[in-house]
Amino acid sequence: MASVKIAIIGAGSAVFSMRLVNDLCKTKGLAGSLVSLMDIDQKRLEGVYDLARRYVEELGADLKFEKTMDLEVALKDADFVINTALVGGHWYLEKVREISQKHGYYRGIDAQEFNMVSDYYTISNFNQLKFFVDVARLMEKLCPKAWLLQTANPVFEGTNLIRRCSNIKVVGFCHGHYGVHEMVEALGLDIEKVDWQVAGFNHAIWLNRFVVEGKNGYELLDKWIEKNSHTWKPKTPFDLQLSPAAIDMYKFYGQLPIGDTPRNGSWKYNYNLEVKKKWYGEPWGGADSELGWKWYQDMLQATTNAIEYLQKNKFIKLLQLETYMKLAPEGIPEELKQQAKIFASPDKLSGEQHILFIDSLVNNIPRRFVINVPNEGYIPQLPDGVVVEVPAIVDAKGWHVEKIEPPLTDRVVKYYLMPRMMRMEMALDAIMNGDKDVLIEFLIRDPRTKSYEQAVAVIEEIMSLPGNEKMKEHYEKRIKL
Amino acid sequence: MASVKIAIIGAGSAVFSMRLVNDLCKTKGLAGSLVSLMDIDQKRLEGVYDLARRYVEELGADLKFEKTMDLEVALKDADFVINTALVGGHWYLEKVREISQKHGYYRGIDAQEFNMVSDYYTISNFNQLKFFVDVARLMEKLCPKAWLLQTANPVFEGTNLIRRCSNIKVVGFCHGHYGVHEMVEALGLDIEKVDWQVAGFNHAIWLNRFVVEGKNGYELLDKWIEKNSHTWKPKTPFDLQLSPAAIDMYKFYGQLPIGDTPRNGSWKYNYNLEVKKKWYGEPWGGADSELGWKWYQDMLQATTNAIEYLQKNKFIKLLQLETYMKLAPEGIPEELKQQAKIFASPDKLSGEQHILFIDSLVNNIPRRFVINVPNEGYIPQLPDGVVVEVPAIVDAKGWHVEKIEPPLTDRVVKYYLMPRMMRMEMALDAIMNGDKDVLIEFLIRDPRTKSYEQAVAVIEEIMSLPGNEKMKEHYEKRIKL
Ligand SMILES: NC(=O)c1ccc[n+]([C@@H]2O[C@H](COP(=O)([O-])OP(=O)(O)OC[C@H]3O[C@@H](n4cnc5c(N)ncnc54)[C@H](O)[C@@H]3O)[C@@H](O)[C@H]2O)c1
Ligand SMILES: NC(=O)c1ccc[n+]([C@@H]2O[C@H](COP(=O)([O-])OP(=O)(O)OC[C@H]3O[C@@H](n4cnc5c(N)ncnc54)[C@H](O)[C@@H]3O)[C@@H](O)[C@H]2O)c1
Repeated sequence: MASVKIAIIGAGSAVFSMRLVNDLCKTKGLAGSLVSLMDIDQKRLEGVYDLARRYVEELGADLKFEKTMDLEVALKDADFVINTALVGGHWYLEKVREISQKHGYYRGIDAQEFNMVSDYYTISNFNQLKFFVDVARLMEKLCPKAWLLQTANPVFEGTNLIRRCSNIKVVGFCHGHYGVHEMVEALGLDIEKVDWQVAGFNHAIWLNRFVVEGKNGYELLDKWIEKNSHTWKPKTPFDLQLSPAAIDMYKFYGQLPIGDTPRNGSWKYNYNLEVKKKWYGEPWGGADSELGWKWYQDMLQATTNAIEYLQKNKFIKLLQLETYMKLAPEGIPEELKQQAKIFASPDKLSGEQHILFIDSLVNNIPRRFVINVPNEGYIPQLPDGVVVEVPAIVDAKGWHVEKIEPPLTDRVVKYYLMPRMMRMEMALDAIMNGDKDVLIEFLIRDPRTKSYEQAVAVIEEIMSLPGNEKMKEHYEKRIKL
Repeated sequence: MASVKIAIIGAGSAVFSMRLVNDLCKTKGLAGSLVSLMDIDQKRLEGVYDLARRYVEELGADLKFEKTMDLEVALKDADFVINTALVGGHWYLEKVREISQKHGYYRGIDAQEFNMVSDYYTISNFNQLKFFVDVARLMEKLCPKAWLLQTANPVFEGTNLIRRCSNIKVVGFCHGHYGVHEMVEALGLDIEKVDWQVAGFNHAIWLNRFVVEGKNGYELLDKWIEKNSHTWKPKTPFDLQLSPAAIDMYKFYGQLPIGDTPRNGSWKYNYNLEVKKKWYGEPWGGADSELGWKWYQDMLQATTNAIEYLQKNKFIKLLQLETYMKLAPEGIPEELKQQAKIFASPDKLSGEQHILFIDSLVNNIPRRFVINVPNEGYIPQLPDGVVVEVPAIVDAKGWHVEKIEPPLTDRVVKYYLMPRMMRMEMALDAIMNGDKDVLIEFLIRDPRTKSYEQAVAVIEEIMSLPGNEKMKEHYEKRIKL
C-alpha cells in the first residue's frame, strides 16, 4: 500500500470524474492517497467534490479529496496527473462544427477520413492541444517525476505532442478495446477463454489476435456474420462493434476494427446521414451523426443533471443510488442507470483503466492494460517513437508491451495506419511551428474542399472566434511550441 | 567495344524510337550490335525501321537493325530490353478519360493527388501493367540475364510490379531530372558549376542538394522568385519547372519539385482549367489540362507524320534534316525542329539516358545517371525494396547510388512520398490479387467521389470496354499475378 497524490485536471468532466472517484474509493492499495480535483468550472467542481467526499465517507475509504481551480496547486508534488479537461467545452466543438458546415464541411473540418469521432478535434481546437503542452511543461517544474495519464482527446495527437514538447512520462488512455468484449459476447463466447490482442493507434486499433481455445476465432466471427449480420440492430448509437461498417472494414483490411475504430472508417460510411444510417444502423446512423451525437450530448447533460441533483439532495445515500434512479424521471438513459448500478455497489469498478494502472505501478501488481505508449518495434512496420495503442503488462517497473503476434495486416498498416499517422504529423507540424499553411494543406487533402479559397475561409473564420485570440496570434506570428 | 543485342519493345513509339536510334548510331562503344525493333503496329514499325537503316547508312555506323512483330523474336537472347510500349495507345487513355469525366472525374480516374500526368495510368490500364509483367516473365525464359530498361509509364508502379512478379533486373528511366538544368539556366547559372542531387520516386523527385560554387543555391532561387516569379510565362505547356505551382510546392515542402513533379501536386493546382491556368500559366494551364494535353497529342501526331513523310521521301538525307524542316509546312512545332537539329548533327545525343547507360555497363565507362532502382537505405526514411529515383554512377559493376545528402525534408517524405507510395501499393495490391475492392477503395479516397455507387459505376463501365475483357475476367475471377 502506498499513498500518492493524484491530480485530476478537468475533474468536472461529466464522463470521467465519477468513474475515477468510484475506482479510487474501491482500490484499497491506494489508501491514504490525496486526490486533487481541479477544474475551472466552479459549479461542476463543487458537485464532483461533494459527491466524492460523501462517497468516501459512505464507503469508509481512506482517501482525501481536495478541490482547486488553480492548476499549479493541483500539480504541485503530484505523483500522477490525469488530464481529462476539454478546453472550450462542447460549446466550442459545436460552434466550430457549425462554421465548418456553413463552408461545406459536413460534421466539421476535424471529421476526417479515419477520424470521424465528434469530440476528437485535431486541428481546430488549438487551445486544447496547447493546454496539453502547458500541463506537461508545468509538470516539469512542479512534479517532474509524475506520470501524465492523458485521457482528454485527441489522445493520439495529444500523447505524441506531449512527448515531442516535454520530458514528462505520458501514457494515453482509452477504453476502446472493450469492443473485444462486446464482440466476444455477441458471438456467445466467454472472454476468459479468448486469447486476444489489439494494436494500432488510439481510435485505430485492430484485432490482430483472436484465438478461442486454440482455434481461430475469426472463423466463428465469419459464421456469425453469415448468420446474423443482416439482422443486426444497434442498441445505442455507440453499439457499433458489429455494425455493417465494422464488418465491411474487416472484410477489406483482413482484421476486425475494434472499439471506436469502426467509427473512424472512410467517407464511404459517412458522406451524409442517409449513408451513415446504412452503415451504422437505424435510427441514429452511429455515434457521430447529427442524431447520434445529439443522443450523446443529452446523455452527458443527464449525467451533469444527476450530479447536480445528488449534490442538492444530500440525504440520498450514494450506495443506494439504484433505488433513487428508479424513482427518478423517465428521462434517465439506460447507460446512466448502468453507471449508477456500479456506483451503488461496494466493489464494482468502472472499467476505466486509470486507477488500476496507478495501483499496478505503485503496488507492483502486474495487470494487463491496453495503453498508448511510444513504439519501440512493437509494431515493426511503424516508426519507433510514434505512440501506439497496444496491450501491456504493467507493474512497478513500468509497462511491458506484449509481442504483437500475428502482426497487423499489410492493409491495416499501409492503407489505414500510415495515412492516419500522416494527419497526426500534419496537425503537430502546424501547431509546433505555428504554420497555418499546414492547416490549409490539411484541408486541401480533404475531399470536401472544392477550392483553396474555401479552405482558407473556414480556417480564418474559426480563428476569428472569440476565445481563439491566442490561436490567431500563434499562427499569425508563427510561434513555435 | 562490345556488341550486344538490344530489343526495343513498342519501337513505333513516336516519343522515343528516333531518339534511341539517334543515340545508338552515335555511340561508338556499341558498334557491331543488333537492335531488334518490335511493335504490333506494322506501319509504325516499318517507318522507324526504314529511318533507322537509312540513318545507319548515312552515318556509316556499324549497327544492325531488325524488325519484328513477334515479342519472342525480339527478346530471344537479348542483352538489354527497352520497354516503351503503350498498350491500348492514346486512344484507350482518352476513352477512359471520357468515361471518367462522365462519372464526375475531371481528367480521368487515374489523375490523382500527386499523380496528374495524363498518360500515367496506374489503375485503369490493366493491359499495360499486365504487359510489363508478361515481358519480364518472357525474359526469364528467353534472356534471363538481360537488363530491362523500363520506360513506358507508369514507371513507378511498373518497376515495383516487375520486381515483385519476376527476377529480372529492371531499372526505370525518365528524363524528369533535366528540370534541374532548366532551372539552373533560368537562374543564369552554369550547370557545370552546380553540385546537385534529386531524390524521390519517379515523377516525384525533389532537389535535395543545390550548391553553386560552394554556396547555397536555394538563396539564388529565392532571389529569382522574388524578382521574376510574377512575370513568369510558360513557353510550352511543359515549361513548368518554375511555374507558380512549383514555387508554391517549394515553399511548402522546403525543397524544389523537379521535372514532372510540379505537375504532380495536389488538387489545389488542378481543380479545373481555370485553377490550372493560375498555377501552370496561360494559355494552357500546364501539360495535363485539356488544352496542354491536346498540344502534346498534336506534337506526337506531328512526329508520327514526320516519320511517315521521311519514309515516303527516300531522297531526303537525314543528316540534312534541318534543311528539310525549314521547307516543311509551318505546322511543325518548335520542339520537333529541335529534335531534327539533334538528329541532323553527326554527334549530338538526344538526352535520353538509355543508350549511355548500356554503354557505361558494357564498356565500363562510369557516368552519372538518375535512375529508378530499389531503395537500399538511400532514402532512409523510406522502406527498402521500394523503387526510388536517385542519382547513381553506373559502370561495368552496375549502379552505385550516391549518398543522398542533405536528406529530403520531413515534409517531402511524410506528406508527399508516403501517400504517393500508398497509392502505388494499392494499385499493385489490386492487380496482383485481382481485387476489385482495392480499385474501389482507391476511388473512395479520391476527393471527386461522392458516393460508393459512383466509384463502382465508373470501374464497371471501364471494365466493360471492348479490349478490357481480360481485365474484367482478372477481377471477376480474382486472378493472382
Ligand atoms: N480517452 C477516453 O477514453 C475518452 C472517452 C470519452 C471522452 N474523452 C475525452 O475527455 C474529454 C472530456 O470530455 P467531456 O465530454 O467530459 O467534456 P466536458 O466538457 O463535459 O468536461 C471537461 C471538463 O474540463 C473542464 N475544463 C475546461 N477547460 C479547463 C482548463 N483549462 N483547466 C481545467 N479544466 C478545464 C471543464 O470545465 C469541464 O468540467 C474530452 O476531450 C473527450 O474527448 C476521452
Ligand atoms: N519514361 C519517360 O521518360 C517517358 C516519357 C514520355 C513518355 N513515356 C511513356 O512511353 C510510353 C509510350 O508513349 P507514346 O506517347 O510514345 O505512345 P505511342 O502510343 O505513340 O507509342 C507506343 C507504341 O507501343 C506500341 N504497342 C502497343 N501495344 C504493344 C504491344 N503489346 N507490344 C509491342 N508494342 C506495342 C504501339 O503500337 C506504339 O507504337 C507511354 O507509356 C508513355 O507514358 C515515358
